Amino acid sequence: MNRHYPSTLLENAVNEFAKLPGIGKKSALRLVLHLLRQDEDKVISFTDTILKLRQEVKYCNICHNISDVDVCEICSDSSRNSSLICVVENVKEVMAIENTDQFSGLYHVLGGIISPIDGIGPSDLEISSLEERVKSGDVKEVVLALSATMEGDTTNFYIFRKLQPYNIKVSIIARGVSIGDEIEYADEVTLGRSILNRTPFDESYKPYSK
Amino acid sequence: MNRHYPSTLLENAVNEFAKLPGIGKKSALRLVLHLLRQDEDKVISFTDTILKLRQEVKYCNICHNISDVDVCEICSDSSRNSSLICVVENVKEVMAIENTDQFSGLYHVLGGIISPIDGIGPSDLEISSLEERVKSGDVKEVVLALSATMEGDTTNFYIFRKLQPYNIKVSIIARGVSIGDEIEYADEVTLGRSILNRTPFDESYKPYSK
Repeated sequence: MNRHYPSTLLENAVNEFAKLPGIGKKSALRLVLHLLRQDEDKVISFTDTILKLRQEVKYCNICHNISDVDVCEICSDSSRNSSLICVVENVKEVMAIENTDQFSGLYHVLGGIISPIDGIGPSDLEISSLEERVKSGDVKEVVLALSATMEGDTTNFYIFRKLQPYNIKVSIIARGVSIGDEIEYADEVTLGRSILNRTPFDESYKPYSK
Repeated sequence: MNRHYPSTLLENAVNEFAKLPGIGKKSALRLVLHLLRQDEDKVISFTDTILKLRQEVKYCNICHNISDVDVCEICSDSSRNSSLICVVENVKEVMAIENTDQFSGLYHVLGGIISPIDGIGPSDLEISSLEERVKSGDVKEVVLALSATMEGDTTNFYIFRKLQPYNIKVSIIARGVSIGDEIEYADEVTLGRSILNRTPFDESYKPYSK
């Protein structure tokens, strides 16, 4: 459908929304027209809140999760097991795993996974800071909880090799989570069980992506 | 799923996105995290463009469609048939009908339809301005192209009664468009045909909503 917009202002706003993942031109127009019907102060609140997040966002100095303070709530909770670190891709996975109530350790948020196609290499991720944590801390076990994709596999092996010299246990969450699915969409029971049933990770590990 | 956000800034941004129609908390988080990964100038461009639309949007003085100028492109096009006016709910329907290439008249954008549940009455819509156009102009026919819903029916009958004194033809687009569907989602061929096959509208007209 060849769309001709009656206004450049409208077209620009639609194009901005359509840049967001999973939002096409038709949905974008619907969202823009919705905002247009709202009071101006509501639209200001919408745009201000988003810009404020982007400009003022902080990350925990330890686990690199999004946080309002320098050391996040989880990392500063002394009742948690600081010898156990769960490696995840992003804040969404921290929230999903926290919701299972099956994990009492700490997290390490990579900020992505290794993906040559997207130009994301190990140095773009929080991998050396993970190594530092393992080197300097009392870490006994690192649990890998990345997505069951080729990129997740690559990242798992990369981290495993980096951590091998430190003689700690490296484990991976049990694959109750369906192959090809992403961590954040797993149901809480399955995800919780896969945290409990984590298995040792070594060279004999069979990648999902084959 | 009981969500606990690691940051208030993040939670606020997610809540703002989740106010948009058809966007739940999970999608909102995904969109917010996407914006968070973008360069700051891209996020500024996103928020500025949306705020600019809301603050600077103009409507055509004649048909009330969104427009960058006082009289829109369609209303100022002298090659179009100014004796024929198509009444639509919103800019989306103008765009959909323009795309059929089957309509050479002008439009009148109501800005919604009569909906007591949402507190929208005739005075909230551009109905009296339609009456003024019919009263003062050389209008020979008004085509009703509202959604086939109870609200659309109510609005059709309300407009029909308002226009009865002026001895013009009032027609309604042919119902090739499926009952219950909304105008903007009809395919171009069906929508184009329903413009061509419009039928006279009077008291004997059978509402869709029964």
